[in-house]
Amino acid sequence: MKKTLYVINPNSNTGVTAGIDAALDILRQDDAPIIECVTLKEGPPGIQTQRDVDLAAVLVREFAEQHREDAAGFVTACFSDPGLHSLREIPDVLSLGISEGAALAAMILGRTFGVIAILDVSIPRHMRAWAAMGISDRVAGEVAIGRTVAELSDSEATLTSMIEAGKSLRDKHRADVLVMGCAGMARYRESLQQAVGLPVVEPSQATVAMALGRLRLGW
Amino acid sequence: MKKTLYVINPNSNTGVTAGIDAALDILRQDDAPIIECVTLKEGPPGIQTQRDVDLAAVLVREFAEQHREDAAGFVTACFSDPGLHSLREIPDVLSLGISEGAALAAMILGRTFGVIAILDVSIPRHMRAWAAMGISDRVAGEVAIGRTVAELSDSEATLTSMIEAGKSLRDKHRADVLVMGCAGMARYRESLQQAVGLPVVEPSQATVAMALGRLRLGW
Amino acid sequence: MKKTLYVINPNSNTGVTAGIDAALDILRQDDAPIIECVTLKEGPPGIQTQRDVDLAAVLVREFAEQHREDAAGFVTACFSDPGLHSLREIPDVLSLGISEGAALAAMILGRTFGVIAILDVSIPRHMRAWAAMGISDRVAGEVAIGRTVAELSDSEATLTSMIEAGKSLRDKHRADVLVMGCAGMARYRESLQQAVGLPVVEPSQATVAMALGRLRLGW
Amino acid sequence: MKKTLYVINPNSNTGVTAGIDAALDILRQDDAPIIECVTLKEGPPGIQTQRDVDLAAVLVREFAEQHREDAAGFVTACFSDPGLHSLREIPDVLSLGISEGAALAAMILGRTFGVIAILDVSIPRHMRAWAAMGISDRVAGEVAIGRTVAELSDSEATLTSMIEAGKSLRDKHRADVLVMGCAGMARYRESLQQAVGLPVVEPSQATVAMALGRLRLGW
Amino acid sequence: MKKTLYVINPNSNTGVTAGIDAALDILRQDDAPIIECVTLKEGPPGIQTQRDVDLAAVLVREFAEQHREDAAGFVTACFSDPGLHSLREIPDVLSLGISEGAALAAMILGRTFGVIAILDVSIPRHMRAWAAMGISDRVAGEVAIGRTVAELSDSEATLTSMIEAGKSLRDKHRADVLVMGCAGMARYRESLQQAVGLPVVEPSQATVAMALGRLRLGW
Amino acid sequence: MKKTLYVINPNSNTGVTAGIDAALDILRQDDAPIIECVTLKEGPPGIQTQRDVDLAAVLVREFAEQHREDAAGFVTACFSDPGLHSLREIPDVLSLGISEGAALAAMILGRTFGVIAILDVSIPRHMRAWAAMGISDRVAGEVAIGRTVAELSDSEATLTSMIEAGKSLRDKHRADVLVMGCAGMARYRESLQQAVGLPVVEPSQATVAMALGRLRLGW
Repeated sequence: MKKTLYVINPNSNTGVTAGIDAALDILRQDDAPIIECVTLKEGPPGIQTQRDVDLAAVLVREFAEQHREDAAGFVTACFSDPGLHSLREIPDVLSLGISEGAALAAMILGRTFGVIAILDVSIPRHMRAWAAMGISDRVAGEVAIGRTVAELSDSEATLTSMIEAGKSLRDKHRADVLVMGCAGMARYRESLQQAVGLPVVEPSQATVAMALGRLRLGW
Repeated sequence: MKKTLYVINPNSNTGVTAGIDAALDILRQDDAPIIECVTLKEGPPGIQTQRDVDLAAVLVREFAEQHREDAAGFVTACFSDPGLHSLREIPDVLSLGISEGAALAAMILGRTFGVIAILDVSIPRHMRAWAAMGISDRVAGEVAIGRTVAELSDSEATLTSMIEAGKSLRDKHRADVLVMGCAGMARYRESLQQAVGLPVVEPSQATVAMALGRLRLGW
Repeated sequence: MKKTLYVINPNSNTGVTAGIDAALDILRQDDAPIIECVTLKEGPPGIQTQRDVDLAAVLVREFAEQHREDAAGFVTACFSDPGLHSLREIPDVLSLGISEGAALAAMILGRTFGVIAILDVSIPRHMRAWAAMGISDRVAGEVAIGRTVAELSDSEATLTSMIEAGKSLRDKHRADVLVMGCAGMARYRESLQQAVGLPVVEPSQATVAMALGRLRLGW
Repeated sequence: MKKTLYVINPNSNTGVTAGIDAALDILRQDDAPIIECVTLKEGPPGIQTQRDVDLAAVLVREFAEQHREDAAGFVTACFSDPGLHSLREIPDVLSLGISEGAALAAMILGRTFGVIAILDVSIPRHMRAWAAMGISDRVAGEVAIGRTVAELSDSEATLTSMIEAGKSLRDKHRADVLVMGCAGMARYRESLQQAVGLPVVEPSQATVAMALGRLRLGW
Repeated sequence: MKKTLYVINPNSNTGVTAGIDAALDILRQDDAPIIECVTLKEGPPGIQTQRDVDLAAVLVREFAEQHREDAAGFVTACFSDPGLHSLREIPDVLSLGISEGAALAAMILGRTFGVIAILDVSIPRHMRAWAAMGISDRVAGEVAIGRTVAELSDSEATLTSMIEAGKSLRDKHRADVLVMGCAGMARYRESLQQAVGLPVVEPSQATVAMALGRLRLGW
Repeated sequence: MKKTLYVINPNSNTGVTAGIDAALDILRQDDAPIIECVTLKEGPPGIQTQRDVDLAAVLVREFAEQHREDAAGFVTACFSDPGLHSLREIPDVLSLGISEGAALAAMILGRTFGVIAILDVSIPRHMRAWAAMGISDRVAGEVAIGRTVAELSDSEATLTSMIEAGKSLRDKHRADVLVMGCAGMARYRESLQQAVGLPVVEPSQATVAMALGRLRLGW
């Protein structure tokens, strides 16, 4: 039986899941695990607070328990990596988080990376995560675009604010690489990269690509 | 109305809660908030895995939501500080975790502290926490006593294993201070300190004492 | 005999001592050690240089030697913590410094703290101290108000300059918490907090509250 | 025209190249770049000293210049990553080093990794590299097996010494993951993993898998 | 036979060598090793890229091999320290690099130093070097003057741009000390120091002075 | 008038001063500042506690004030660098401490250095100093020989204990270089180096050599 790599969007926003799903098409292959993107319907509408993250962590693990039979692996596809260390307690599957994966990908693209966050309130949480990973010296900084979920639906304005944040990370924080601090926004990656002139890491793509390579190795 | 400092044992083991409660008697005062130790009945019997921690985090926050009216503050009384950063999102109350509180207390007692953990599996989780706090340079190391919940009921053997771990931290890891990496074991503190000859921090006491001081200040 | 917690202002400015003393009233309790604030008459008029700090260190220790019989503990109440590590060589008393105590208090209020220093010349000294404590990753930065002792007597202008420094720490250094880098200025704490919108740590209060908690525990 | 991912063995030992080549078979795919493993005939017989590394760096870059037309990317397949930062100056190709790639792969498998080095003399060089990458906090330590090139031809004894080093990293250095600090030894990976009971990262496989994922993304 | 301290300019620019040579006159003594400044004719015209650094590393070591008989020591006089760790493999001679030497000299002049680089492209390379040395916490930052080799020949404009960079390091990066991130520019040192008001370290002088002291000790 | 480099032994032990003086003979030159080693008669008999260090700091600065007219510079010749940062407040002289100087010298001799301390009680103080310097990553560890002042007079036994400590630093702590953590013991340097097989830094010699180089430069 062919195994599945589950990419879990831990919020209940199916639009985000669709965005992730489309971005991963390029990685799908016949002789590789199925890539299935799922929405956690009981998840919060968006993951903004630590409370959201903690709740998502439980739901992500529950989902994984229900699907471990046919799972090749799990990717928790929210930039706070909810449930990542819990997923790793499940033996014989590979588990990754898109924040960790994006950071590792960025580290081969330049000395320091800057993160375009959605909300200011997430930045201290991200900073704790970078420190916990032991890679704070590689983080140039984070800049939030400060847009609510509603405001994110305006694509043009969202891209404009991401470009502005990216330029600030490039010029004030001296970032060599940009990381998009959110899932489901792959469609902006290329425009952002062109406008800012720095390599841009889209976290879901970066992480799933890494997962597939590891799954092919079988270890 | 007199406010309450809720000390939340996030596992369902009432014996642990009783141990915490007894240890805090010395800190109770008429003109200070009530100290109430509670057991989360829906919590896991013990908190060993990250899954346990994540589940506890949600339960701790739920409890806090239900008691925020009369709460002066909350202490999450498990050495993995489940729910701590979520608690801190509740405005106008003071929230602490016993792992963080113990570490801060240890930092005024010596240059480096060593942690007596219960299980080996918790050590990488603790290490991530120290790194996230930015205090890894103060951590001499951790040694687990490797006892199951059942085995912990044998007090004499437990103390013996804690002393052994403490001596290893003192001699091999060059710890200046010991931190008991578990709630509800205050009754061993003095014997351990005598046997090893290093100051020993009991995390619930250290953290609640800190909380009370801050509450008296009113900021 | 009731023991005393000596809070030592190591400069000879009795106005500073009075400011500290007033700020600690809220922490005085019948069933706790006496809190006695003392001025070291032989101390420098203000502690600005390393020479001042070194001299103060000797005087602080001398004072402690003379009062160790009835001392529950000592707090060295200058933001350079003069004599702190010497005080800790005295057995059976608890010794704290207000810089260390303020930092530990700030670390539970946010990820990074910024310090409002009095003079630029003190900042490298503080930075060495944070590094020696192993907590540099938690320090957002320091900004000096650049006022001489004489100028500090103008309360309104002092508050204005502290607010300006606080806003710079908040906006440019991304501090989550402010620490007042000086003893005896508790009267500005609340106005500063209101004006900047970040929690503000007053070091003498934070440290003495911590000391009292530890003394109550008896370890 | 199909592009090629060049995996450059910078020493002149064709046996090492053959070992790398065999290990990468599992990663070859019809719809992916050709994986071609090459030996640098002018390279040193083995890369042991910094002099060897510097010479190899020049040769690796020279090779890359000659093949940049049809190159999708370059992997410098020696654990000192000779020429890596020079390769990265070539625009429009992806360049990786197996030491960096192995470290990033190890960081998703556990908190700390230990490296099985060949010679003691390489360890300070590796330590400089981990520090330059800003990931020293994730490195548990390195242990050398201390075998010369001639001695490495004795497979059984080599495996035995690797297992011994691995157990030392697990027990004394508290490594959660092992990294094989040499190219061309993939055939020992599974036995080593079984014997030590920790996940083992083979650097060439880990790095090429990562490269292929990135090439598929096209960024 | 009197031994020689070879100061190797690894680029082919004899003007740079002459600048270094003149700056070292003050350090020449009858009873000390000869100080001989040499140009590597096969070196690149300037060392800007990592490729230049790697090539220079090989050439520097080759030069050293040819002169080890009468060498007291070697100084690799380019701010990327090409070949330094290779030189250190030669027994019984002392080898230093001007970047390392400048950093160590700066560390006794103030808490943090800022580097005036020539080109932006060198800054990540320098940052890797500071991290590899384990001294990143002492580095305030780097600012490039962004002048090509041709433009450097305009002395007045070069000094002006260095002063501007120095003031930016002083005011924005809070550097206590400036380091000139290039060999052969000692003639600007004093003017720069006067204009910026911070101590300025010239790397060739600082390093050769350190080398001579060590050679006199004989260890 | 020829200026003097004052090397201040801040304890009252003239034997230590004589040991320092003899060790510096090799650095004396006609065309360089006079090197004068002085004993602070009011200093403690030995510097063991922080109290001793603080007292010495004041005395060292007092001495410097009295001799600043003819001083080229000051070296505080005790491994706790008493008064170093106070000395640096005196303009127009160069001030160094032998602990800092030894560390900087060791950093060019190998990746990590280990310190042979006299007493265990000094080790946390040294560790604070390395952290304050921002170089903890270069410190392999410290091992004390645990000999009192009286016991140090037995040269043979002292050397034996230093060799034992040195071997422990080499084998258990993986030090590449040894630093003698005490002034006035230069006579053991060569025997120690031979016995342990690692380069050994004698702090007074290393620091004075560095000072003389800087004085010759005039900046």
